[in-house]
Amino acid sequence: MKKEVEAWFRSFQDNLCAALQTCDGGAVFEEDLWQKEDGDGGGRTRIIQNGLVLEKGGVLFSAVTGILPEAAARALLLPDPQFFATGVSVVLHPTNPMVPIAHMNVRYFEAGNGEAWFGGGIDLTPIYVDTEQASTFHKALKSACDQHNPAYYPEFKKWADDYFYISHRRETRGVGGIFFDRLQATPDINIAERFAFVQSVANTFAPVYTNLMNQNRGKTYTPEQKQWQLLRRGRYVEFNLALDRGTRFGLETGGRTESILMSLPAMAAWQYNYTPADGSPEAKTLQFLKKDIDWINL
Amino acid sequence: MKKEVEAWFRSFQDNLCAALQTCDGGAVFEEDLWQKEDGDGGGRTRIIQNGLVLEKGGVLFSAVTGILPEAAARALLLPDPQFFATGVSVVLHPTNPMVPIAHMNVRYFEAGNGEAWFGGGIDLTPIYVDTEQASTFHKALKSACDQHNPAYYPEFKKWADDYFYISHRRETRGVGGIFFDRLQATPDINIAERFAFVQSVANTFAPVYTNLMNQNRGKTYTPEQKQWQLLRRGRYVEFNLALDRGTRFGLETGGRTESILMSLPAMAAWQYNYTPADGSPEAKTLQFLKKDIDWINL
Repeated sequence: MKKEVEAWFRSFQDNLCAALQTCDGGAVFEEDLWQKEDGDGGGRTRIIQNGLVLEKGGVLFSAVTGILPEAAARALLLPDPQFFATGVSVVLHPTNPMVPIAHMNVRYFEAGNGEAWFGGGIDLTPIYVDTEQASTFHKALKSACDQHNPAYYPEFKKWADDYFYISHRRETRGVGGIFFDRLQATPDINIAERFAFVQSVANTFAPVYTNLMNQNRGKTYTPEQKQWQLLRRGRYVEFNLALDRGTRFGLETGGRTESILMSLPAMAAWQYNYTPADGSPEAKTLQFLKKDIDWINL
Repeated sequence: MKKEVEAWFRSFQDNLCAALQTCDGGAVFEEDLWQKEDGDGGGRTRIIQNGLVLEKGGVLFSAVTGILPEAAARALLLPDPQFFATGVSVVLHPTNPMVPIAHMNVRYFEAGNGEAWFGGGIDLTPIYVDTEQASTFHKALKSACDQHNPAYYPEFKKWADDYFYISHRRETRGVGGIFFDRLQATPDINIAERFAFVQSVANTFAPVYTNLMNQNRGKTYTPEQKQWQLLRRGRYVEFNLALDRGTRFGLETGGRTESILMSLPAMAAWQYNYTPADGSPEAKTLQFLKKDIDWINL
């Protein structure tokens, strides 16, 4: 299984980079190959910078074997700390504040005792929430989920609301999406079907996001709207550095820092106690940064 | 004791704000008074923005009582989770990359079982390390320490090297300073003497830092030097959000977010895998971002 998943993730990275690069039209992905210091695997980090749409973004593939830190093995209830992990992670920061920030991740984990599972997710962080676009985005995710199990979308949408939550701000990171972890084989669902689901999720990303790029790339914006983007990116930085479990796990276990922190934007801002004016588009956006919004039946 | 410490910290905040504001000459501190939701204390947050030297900075006083989260009480080996804490925290981000970022904190903690201690520290983060200025800075800290105990400076300097260390970057945050925690009364040193030491440390900050402001405020800089400052501020953000224990404790225990995150700069940048050219002033600065540099006998 792991060879098959790893090979598919690798080719998925190729296809996604090609689609994003073609859509952007102004910059190409640069590749850095890296190996773990102990030689047990490595990755292909691909970064795009200063494109026509994408100011800074990364599409990362990795496949590593290793030994979990004791606390991590205990938290995962794994008796054997050996593991294999492979995945693709994507974060895209556009220049234009009218184009949302996007994130996706798909991953496969095999523990030393033979337990294996998939995890992943997609979420969207608009600087200005366009409710129609947010709804279309969620419908595409629901459709990918529904092909496999009608219970998936409601469950994984709620999981995203809870995961992409900036507790100290009492805000969600954006309009959410789906998030799932530790999807193992069950009596009803074998691991191949879990893999098929993850492939459906991954394959949703490029068409949905390039569509959002194209719909919004031509929109004009003011310096004030750009500043609002920088402040919202500040929140993105807060989430990734202070809260995101993947980032923290990577940094604490000696992952490749420049790959892990590709998720940070080219520039971000903080302004003490900034509150947008009542009724402004910025204030309206904040009203949508909440859990439990039904984006399908808005 | 706690009334006396709280009153001194409060007047220290007044004096420090006055000194910084006079030196800056272009902006004044704005004050926000806040109360804990349960009413057990609060604080005076004072923020300066867009001054002649200081782009964004805060001088925060707080005094609160509360109940430690179980994990925190256990980590501190405290049988009784009730506590009283008061302190002053300072972070100053200048506009000009030739003026270093500065941080200081002094704090007093009283546990429910009667244990009481002081903690604190000062550290300096130059964007370009001026070795003479860094040395003068350390000599001032050593002099404040030596008035009380010749063992303090070496011990607390090493503590700062270890604390202000960005492990995932293998860099110190800046040129260090001093850091100390849980300074309790001992058979040789009573709590009043601990307090006197903390007062000496606190009183060192204004003369040392206003001197650094004045020495560097008139220096010219290029857009490339400004960009280097934004990248170094990115590291500062990484430290504060991912590693700083005070920030994490504050955010996790429901502290006032806008006060805690006053430590973040107005703007910060990230650039994938940026490495300064060999022999450049930027590369030279990186060489000084290491532990165990003897700044006194440089």
